[in-house]
Amino acid sequence: MDLRENEQFVQLAPASDAALRFIGRIRTPWTTREDCPRQGRIDGPECRIELDHDWHDALDGLEAYQTVEVLYWLDQSRRDLIRQSPRSDGKTVGTFALRSPARPNPIGTSSVRLLRIADGVLHVQGLDCVDGTPLIDLKPDRCAFTPKAPEQPGDSQTA
Amino acid sequence: MDLRENEQFVQLAPASDAALRFIGRIRTPWTTREDCPRQGRIDGPECRIELDHDWHDALDGLEAYQTVEVLYWLDQSRRDLIRQSPRSDGKTVGTFALRSPARPNPIGTSSVRLLRIADGVLHVQGLDCVDGTPLIDLKPDRCAFTPKAPEQPGDSQTA
Repeated sequence: MDLRENEQFVQLAPASDAALRFIGRIRTPWTTREDCPRQGRIDGPECRIELDHDWHDALDGLEAYQTVEVLYWLDQSRRDLIRQSPRSDGKTVGTFALRSPARPNPIGTSSVRLLRIADGVLHVQGLDCVDGTPLIDLKPDRCAFTPKAPEQPGDSQTA
Repeated sequence: MDLRENEQFVQLAPASDAALRFIGRIRTPWTTREDCPRQGRIDGPECRIELDHDWHDALDGLEAYQTVEVLYWLDQSRRDLIRQSPRSDGKTVGTFALRSPARPNPIGTSSVRLLRIADGVLHVQGLDCVDGTPLIDLKPDRCAFTPKAPEQPGDSQTA
């Protein structure tokens, strides 16, 4: 695969530490990576998250949240880059200092505005991925969520 | 595996859609799931994220951010629950309406305060996972990050 000037990669054995199960697909207006926004905007185009039928009942209660965290698999990305050159100008920065899709485990995370849920489909704004991207997880946004389970000792621990 | 009253699960084939590569380990004061906080706090105990040697150079530039998004693999979690009962009281809610570790792809996400980076180890506050949890990814926090690559057409699209 092509490298830009000064980019750096690592030789790796195939990934095999854990396996993911795709649970749906994301539908967006962007059919190629070059069309996508660099970062989703909360006033962006309406997108659909289509959940597989097995998991429809697992949505119960999510409709109460205005903001949802979405995890998805960036299946077109290379996974071996250590240093990347976002502007192709010979200047590089470490992979973990970027939100680039090229990373050892190409998982995208977005915080989206939830418009509505109907028949296992979430209508949302704020995504930035290619049409057809596999869905990995949905969670209430961290900031809006209060744990439902009883407190545990760690909850009151501070530095 | 034990179910609480009214919890619901789904029968699934083994996960095989994509494979993860662990890139390090997370060190926390909590040795069992029962000790952990339900949700990390930014003034919580200092924890360490130990990155595997292969990836040390990929940290270059991350030190400029005060807040880092951390993705990790909740390897003790069951993955087949559709409805869960956080208080074991017979009342249930859908898995996607919870931030419980039990989910089809048990990936935890936290936004942590970065104290310092030294020799491939990040010292942070704000985690809530068990000691030894496998690391999947590190990214600058979404809110603090400005894309470094040139704009693309999708960037200016609104609803």
